[in-house]
Amino acid sequence: MKIKAAIVGATGYVGEELYRILHTHSNVEVTAVTSVSYAGQKYSDIYRNFGHISQLECKDGDLEKLADEVDVIFLALPHGIASKQINAKILEKCKVIDLGADYRLKDQSVYEKWYATAHESADLLKSAVYGLCEVYRDDIKKAQLVANPGCYTTCSILSLLPLVKEGLIDTSTIVIDAKSGVSGAGRGVNIDTLYCECNESIKAYKIASHRHTPEIEQELSFAAGKDIVLSFTPHLTPMNRGILATCYAKAKADYKTIRTVYEKYYGNEFFIRLTKEGVFPETRWVKGTNFVDIGFALDERTGNIVVVGAIDNLIKGAAGQAVQNMNIMFGFDETQALDTAGIFPA
Amino acid sequence: MKIKAAIVGATGYVGEELYRILHTHSNVEVTAVTSVSYAGQKYSDIYRNFGHISQLECKDGDLEKLADEVDVIFLALPHGIASKQINAKILEKCKVIDLGADYRLKDQSVYEKWYATAHESADLLKSAVYGLCEVYRDDIKKAQLVANPGCYTTCSILSLLPLVKEGLIDTSTIVIDAKSGVSGAGRGVNIDTLYCECNESIKAYKIASHRHTPEIEQELSFAAGKDIVLSFTPHLTPMNRGILATCYAKAKADYKTIRTVYEKYYGNEFFIRLTKEGVFPETRWVKGTNFVDIGFALDERTGNIVVVGAIDNLIKGAAGQAVQNMNIMFGFDETQALDTAGIFPA
Amino acid sequence: MKIKAAIVGATGYVGEELYRILHTHSNVEVTAVTSVSYAGQKYSDIYRNFGHISQLECKDGDLEKLADEVDVIFLALPHGIASKQINAKILEKCKVIDLGADYRLKDQSVYEKWYATAHESADLLKSAVYGLCEVYRDDIKKAQLVANPGCYTTCSILSLLPLVKEGLIDTSTIVIDAKSGVSGAGRGVNIDTLYCECNESIKAYKIASHRHTPEIEQELSFAAGKDIVLSFTPHLTPMNRGILATCYAKAKADYKTIRTVYEKYYGNEFFIRLTKEGVFPETRWVKGTNFVDIGFALDERTGNIVVVGAIDNLIKGAAGQAVQNMNIMFGFDETQALDTAGIFPA
Amino acid sequence: MKIKAAIVGATGYVGEELYRILHTHSNVEVTAVTSVSYAGQKYSDIYRNFGHISQLECKDGDLEKLADEVDVIFLALPHGIASKQINAKILEKCKVIDLGADYRLKDQSVYEKWYATAHESADLLKSAVYGLCEVYRDDIKKAQLVANPGCYTTCSILSLLPLVKEGLIDTSTIVIDAKSGVSGAGRGVNIDTLYCECNESIKAYKIASHRHTPEIEQELSFAAGKDIVLSFTPHLTPMNRGILATCYAKAKADYKTIRTVYEKYYGNEFFIRLTKEGVFPETRWVKGTNFVDIGFALDERTGNIVVVGAIDNLIKGAAGQAVQNMNIMFGFDETQALDTAGIFPA
Repeated sequence: MKIKAAIVGATGYVGEELYRILHTHSNVEVTAVTSVSYAGQKYSDIYRNFGHISQLECKDGDLEKLADEVDVIFLALPHGIASKQINAKILEKCKVIDLGADYRLKDQSVYEKWYATAHESADLLKSAVYGLCEVYRDDIKKAQLVANPGCYTTCSILSLLPLVKEGLIDTSTIVIDAKSGVSGAGRGVNIDTLYCECNESIKAYKIASHRHTPEIEQELSFAAGKDIVLSFTPHLTPMNRGILATCYAKAKADYKTIRTVYEKYYGNEFFIRLTKEGVFPETRWVKGTNFVDIGFALDERTGNIVVVGAIDNLIKGAAGQAVQNMNIMFGFDETQALDTAGIFPA
Repeated sequence: MKIKAAIVGATGYVGEELYRILHTHSNVEVTAVTSVSYAGQKYSDIYRNFGHISQLECKDGDLEKLADEVDVIFLALPHGIASKQINAKILEKCKVIDLGADYRLKDQSVYEKWYATAHESADLLKSAVYGLCEVYRDDIKKAQLVANPGCYTTCSILSLLPLVKEGLIDTSTIVIDAKSGVSGAGRGVNIDTLYCECNESIKAYKIASHRHTPEIEQELSFAAGKDIVLSFTPHLTPMNRGILATCYAKAKADYKTIRTVYEKYYGNEFFIRLTKEGVFPETRWVKGTNFVDIGFALDERTGNIVVVGAIDNLIKGAAGQAVQNMNIMFGFDETQALDTAGIFPA
Repeated sequence: MKIKAAIVGATGYVGEELYRILHTHSNVEVTAVTSVSYAGQKYSDIYRNFGHISQLECKDGDLEKLADEVDVIFLALPHGIASKQINAKILEKCKVIDLGADYRLKDQSVYEKWYATAHESADLLKSAVYGLCEVYRDDIKKAQLVANPGCYTTCSILSLLPLVKEGLIDTSTIVIDAKSGVSGAGRGVNIDTLYCECNESIKAYKIASHRHTPEIEQELSFAAGKDIVLSFTPHLTPMNRGILATCYAKAKADYKTIRTVYEKYYGNEFFIRLTKEGVFPETRWVKGTNFVDIGFALDERTGNIVVVGAIDNLIKGAAGQAVQNMNIMFGFDETQALDTAGIFPA
Repeated sequence: MKIKAAIVGATGYVGEELYRILHTHSNVEVTAVTSVSYAGQKYSDIYRNFGHISQLECKDGDLEKLADEVDVIFLALPHGIASKQINAKILEKCKVIDLGADYRLKDQSVYEKWYATAHESADLLKSAVYGLCEVYRDDIKKAQLVANPGCYTTCSILSLLPLVKEGLIDTSTIVIDAKSGVSGAGRGVNIDTLYCECNESIKAYKIASHRHTPEIEQELSFAAGKDIVLSFTPHLTPMNRGILATCYAKAKADYKTIRTVYEKYYGNEFFIRLTKEGVFPETRWVKGTNFVDIGFALDERTGNIVVVGAIDNLIKGAAGQAVQNMNIMFGFDETQALDTAGIFPA
């Protein structure tokens, strides 16, 4: 069986990564790549890594039409666009995986506040499934519309979820200090993401105001069964890819108890690797993969737990998880096209 | 007036940076550079940036002899060596600025615990002055032995000190998440600091166990008038230089009050630059300089303050502050050889 | 059909890349990885990108024994070792692909001069096939011992071969200016490959003396049917991977003639991509792949042709070409495990 | 004595570097910085490395007016603008150092062909002095208008000039393969200079068509006393700063003869450092300085000489040489504000 897939917004970094991964998937054929900016151009002229790989030309995508032609549509668009274009009719015809933010937040008002825009298809929020595979696998199987999680959020939520769900930390003390590679900022031209402006420098940005904050809080609140408010600070790091989330909270259990819980939650998850005691994640080991590496330490002196999570922001933080979602939705092996060692050094 | 200076351990990155800065100082002549590994070699053959600048040859340094020849000795050595070599006799003859860790911690037992070695000249701990210039300026003026602060510590302490001293944060909640460039790891050969192992990756290391922790705690405790225990996590970032410390704590005052306090403490300090509201430090703006950039935000949702500090780890975090200390000790203009804009992009 | 493979010297960058690629090959099972330095350790503890992928432990490899157990042995060793260990008996039992230099040069005296060591199995030089797949495909099919080409050499030879073979350039004027990422220097600890020594700097090294020179000359001389001597200058570039070879020579034909020749030679080669007129290779587009990108320009003013070739030094320049050789030797599809778009940005 | 200086186009990388250097010059006060894009903004808000250093605000520069107010105007503008604005009247009032391309080429038609634009003040071409300090020092002393050389050109010309002038190479065989850091591309927003597009990749560009080619040829032709045509290929290298020029030609003399000539030409030049035999320039050793490092090897096998030159593109390749020119024009010590060791690692 081979399904047909369309990538809408295929010329951003996420869309391109998606195409790369799907190309290696033996049950998928990418039949359409769309781009507003590059419509009419050969894909391999834009992304020359696709030379001798792709023969497709970019189209100016029409969702209604694509829905007739393919089995699954991946949307890799800026927020606010998907919610205008997706509707029940499209969802009857094909499955949709939205890599943007529009269907991630269950509470329309939270979305509208943080994204400062009206939500145009709030009726779909209820049926949309939050595509954090390790958490919502069963719902994803039946979903017609999946909201693929954000990059920072995937890393942060998976790092903390077992602790929150099992009541092992004081949830009023959570601090997440996250570091991302520059590809997270996308391919738009901007003085701030020029080589000479990013290289050899690290900075915090959007302190106390980054839009991934409510998404992390939503999921950890669901897990805790109570409202969680936390501090989240993103940083821009001079590297192409990778997110490292260093998470802090007051611990309410000892190392062994916590270790056991992590193993219970994640011991059978292929894409989650717990590091050994005293060893911590580094983004280089997950670069190019769908893995999440998680490690933690207890600081006996302060009573804090420090949990470190690492992902590739474009893969488990975007395109890879989207493919994982697709695998689940279509009943393929969940690891298909994703079960490779990362390229190193890369 | 021109004083004579010796740099002991001149072929590490800190010693070399010290030499570079002192070379531009109109009141100082560097008359001796020493190195165990490179004794007998021309300095400019080891560090070719010194071609046409330095004619010196590395000597195998004997402190007693150097003390007879120079006015000030800078020690840029691994910990545990200075404490074996410095003694009262040397200090009678010349001033000493130790860039290592041996005289930073006032409590010998804390030193011996964290550094896992005996302190060989604990009698000097009392008279040694902790060389954090903005805090101990008056003591430094009279000091014969200055313990130059660590890199992470300089950045962390200066970022938090006004808050701690004025009781504006809950000191039981302090978390410092710090990111350093690779030069902080020194020039020793090690698989972990090879180009391909560091490039394109970020990691946390020595979680809850880094030796700069007790130094930060000592100084913040002095400021608070009570014992402070805090979480400190260093990270290795793919860049040559720079430290960014992102500091978190529960705030006990509003933005304006806090801003006023920072301005009271630092408004007249040349080397401390407070960023405007909504603007935050980035290591590129302090690279190559002795500046500390500090900015903060209040997270209304969590009640946390987030303070960000940035320095060049080899300058304000080592060699630059050492020169600033020397300037104070010898009555030179405190900013001499240090009052330059940073090189950018660098 | 699934063959068994052993990787000898599996913990260098080339060995590790080989393992990564072979892991994705549906007709190969890697059953042994060997390492002198890491014998007894779990492979995924050394290279953590192999977590949840590899369960193997490093062995201290014995070639005779391995030859009994596997169908193909890959040797990723420093030069001078393979020639001591490989012998006819081993080659009767299994195929060997040597990624080192020992069997590349057909003339023993040239080897011994450039490598300053005696060749211990010169009797095998004649039967060993130089594994430049696009050139020696037919010989490789029948080979028992393949000498996998060097990284600089693969890029340089493929860039120039059609010109040389068809007499389109003055072969007495060839200059190859090549730039390599740091992974080419291997994983050995060395002050010169520390992060802070390589980052933000480019240099030429081994001018007029690099060991890949005679290898390039040998192959171009074979192609030309006469002895070619050329200038080759390698450079170390601040990036993990990639080789760019910029090649110069006096041209003896016009653009169209040359273009036609390149297309004749490479038009049907999957792994060679000719760039369009006016477009030139960049290492980012081949990173992570087995592709060679080749483009050229004619400088009307000087009469020179400038040919630019780009490869990933660890893939087409080492591990990837080794797998391509294996595919040819065992009758697999030549592109198997190698027909993917490169990861970008990476 | 303290002269007044204006920097026109102060918010590009070259203008900013100029300001940084001039700030350390004890005989110069920068009284005006101009910028079309940032007029009205505080300079230290644009380039935060100037915090606590500069109090200036950007003006929208009027050259006539500036000429009344300052002693020297530095122009750091895209080509084609200076030639429209500079005139004899301005040059009567103050000295001008143009860091752009407009007055470098003595032959108007060559300028107009390569730059594809009309020259608006060709009458000034004759009196304008080409500001390659080591070559035209005496003319610069008397100049009112100096055309500051290009970055690639400075490095290339100085590397080859003694060979050309003394007839030590076959000038019909010159190939210059040059590698530049990304700052050479300026601060304009462009997808090609985004961090993720440049990082981890090297490429050649503008092959056989870069505008610095006629400038190099002009100067080498003057030196040779005959027309020289050569191949010049620029490359974009993933680093902020630095140019390495690897130059090839058939040699007509032996090592010792050539060495002697280099020493005759450059032995007394402070800013030119000849590397020892067997040692070659690396951009890291000149980063942050006005030095040119030059080294060479003879390839006995091919008869080629390989000369390697290294500079910091923004300093000796732009702002530093402009200050050196100013020092000569105003009778200051030629090395003033420029006689520092480079910052390393940087």
